[in-house]
Amino acid sequence: MRVIVTGAGGLVGRRLVEALSDRAQVVATDLRLPQGMVGVEGDLNDPATCARLFAHGCDAVVHLATVPGGAAEADPALGWHVNVEATRQLAEAAAAAGTRPAFVYASSIAVLGELAGVDRADDTTALRPALHYGAHKAMMEAWLATLGRRGALRPLALRLPGIVARPEAGAGLKSAFLSQLFHAIIADQAITLPVSAGATTWLMSAQQAAANLIHGIALARQAPEPRALTLPALRVRIDALVAAIAAQAGRAPQVSYAPDPEIEAAFGRYLPLRTPAADALGFASDGTLDRLVAAALKEIA
Amino acid sequence: MRVIVTGAGGLVGRRLVEALSDRAQVVATDLRLPQGMVGVEGDLNDPATCARLFAHGCDAVVHLATVPGGAAEADPALGWHVNVEATRQLAEAAAAAGTRPAFVYASSIAVLGELAGVDRADDTTALRPALHYGAHKAMMEAWLATLGRRGALRPLALRLPGIVARPEAGAGLKSAFLSQLFHAIIADQAITLPVSAGATTWLMSAQQAAANLIHGIALARQAPEPRALTLPALRVRIDALVAAIAAQAGRAPQVSYAPDPEIEAAFGRYLPLRTPAADALGFASDGTLDRLVAAALKEIA
Repeated sequence: MRVIVTGAGGLVGRRLVEALSDRAQVVATDLRLPQGMVGVEGDLNDPATCARLFAHGCDAVVHLATVPGGAAEADPALGWHVNVEATRQLAEAAAAAGTRPAFVYASSIAVLGELAGVDRADDTTALRPALHYGAHKAMMEAWLATLGRRGALRPLALRLPGIVARPEAGAGLKSAFLSQLFHAIIADQAITLPVSAGATTWLMSAQQAAANLIHGIALARQAPEPRALTLPALRVRIDALVAAIAAQAGRAPQVSYAPDPEIEAAFGRYLPLRTPAADALGFASDGTLDRLVAAALKEIA
Repeated sequence: MRVIVTGAGGLVGRRLVEALSDRAQVVATDLRLPQGMVGVEGDLNDPATCARLFAHGCDAVVHLATVPGGAAEADPALGWHVNVEATRQLAEAAAAAGTRPAFVYASSIAVLGELAGVDRADDTTALRPALHYGAHKAMMEAWLATLGRRGALRPLALRLPGIVARPEAGAGLKSAFLSQLFHAIIADQAITLPVSAGATTWLMSAQQAAANLIHGIALARQAPEPRALTLPALRVRIDALVAAIAAQAGRAPQVSYAPDPEIEAAFGRYLPLRTPAADALGFASDGTLDRLVAAALKEIA
C-alpha cells in the first residue's frame, strides 16, 4: 500500500510516518522535511509537487498540511491558499492518480466554532466556525464529501482536538499555550496562562492522533457515512492538567492564571463532548489524563 | 441605498435590477451587460472590476453571478474560478468597502443533493450535494456565514429552486428542458422531455425570485439566524405543468416523454418541500401553478 502523507514534518506527521513505515510505502511531503526523513519537498499548490507525489500511483492520502488557526488569522490569503486551494489541488491529483484512493483529511474541532448556547457537543452539533481556519476545514469537508459521493475518492475527514505537546515555537496555533505549559513545567520555569484554572479544553496526544489517522485509512477504504467525524478527545480541566504534568515530571509547577476573555472563549470553555459515531467506528481518545500526559511528555523528551 | 447586483445580465438579474431601480441606486455588473443596462462589465476575479464596483461604497450586494450545474460539470476549473474564487473576492471587497453590508447570496437547492432515502425535504435536511455546483454553493454558504459571525458582512444565502422560463439557449443548466418546454409549446413545436410525465420538480418564476431577493436585502440587514434559507418553491408535476402552459398559451401541446435515468434522478424526483424558516420570515413561492406559468410566460413574450 502506497500512502502519501502531507505535512509530514509536523508533530503528528512525524509520528504518523514513523508508525506507518513498517506497514506501507510512505511518500512523505512538506515544504521542508526533517533531517533524516526521505520524501518530496515542495508546495502542494505547485502542480510539479503533486506530479512527483503521485508519479507512482496512490492507495491513500493523509492530508495534514495546513495553516493553523492563529497563522491563518494573521495571513488570511496564505490560509486560503494552503487550507482551501492546496487541499483542492491535492484531492484532484489523488483522484486522477489512483483508483478511488482513501483520502483521510485532518479536519479540526474548529469547524464547530464557539459552541455558544449549547450545553454539550455531539455528532449533531451544527458547524458554526468562528475562525478562518475552521471555515476552511468545514468547506473542504463539504468538497471532499462531494468528491466521495461522485466516486472520485474515498474521503474521511477526522476532526482533531488540540494536540499536545507541540514544539515550543508554537507553529502559529492560537492554542500554543497548552503545549508551552508542558515545556515550562519540565524546564522549571514560571508560566502565565491566558485561561482560568477552571477552563476546560479537549486534548489528544500526537501519538493517539497518529493511531486514529491510521485507523482512518483502513476505514476510509470502506467509504463510510458520514464522511466527517469528530474524534473522541479527553476533556481536561487546566488545573488538573497542571497537576498531572507536575506529578509525572516531578516538578513544583509555577503556574499563574491571567484569563484573556477571547482565548478563554475560544479554548477554555469546551463542553462535554460525545462522539458516538467515531466511538462506534473504533476511534479512541488517550483514555485517561495520565496516559495523555505521559504520551505528551514523550514528545518533549 | 447602494446595491451591487452581480450576474445582472441574467434572467433573474434583469428582473431584479428592474425592480430595484426605483428604490435604490443599483450598480449592475456582469461579464457583458444587456443593451440599455448601465453598469460595470468585467470578471469579478479581476481586482480592478471589484475596485470599480465598490469605489463609492456599498450598502448591499446581491450575488447572482455563477457557473450553473451543467456548465460547471463540463468545465470544473471554470466552475471553481467563478463559484468559489469570485465569490470570495467579491465578499472580501464588500467587507472592505462597506459598513457590514448586506450580502444576499443566490445559493441553490443543489446543495441538498439527490435526497435519496428521505421522504421529504425541510430545513433540517442534511446538505449532500452531488454536483460540483451544489458543493460550491454549500462551501460558500459556510464561508459567508463565518464572515457574518465575524462581523465583516451581513450574509444571507437564499437557496433558489429551478427558475422558469429561461431563454432558449439554456445557459449551461442541466435543467434547461424545463424552460425549453415553455418555448416549445408557445412555438407549437414538438418536444421530447428527458423525464417522465409523473416527474416532480421545484420551480419559481424569475419575477418571484427577484421579489424574494429584494426581501432578502431588507432581512439580511437584520443579521438573522440561520444565515442560509431554502426558499419556498412550487412542487410541480410535469404533466400538470404541460397542461397549464398549453391552457394559458392556447396551444395543443406536442410533448412526449423519454426519461433519462440520470436527469430523472437529478430533476424529476423532488420530494414534498417544507420551508418553515423562510415562510416565517416572509419569503414566498409563486403560490399556484397558474400564477407561476403566467409569470414565466411573461418572460418569453
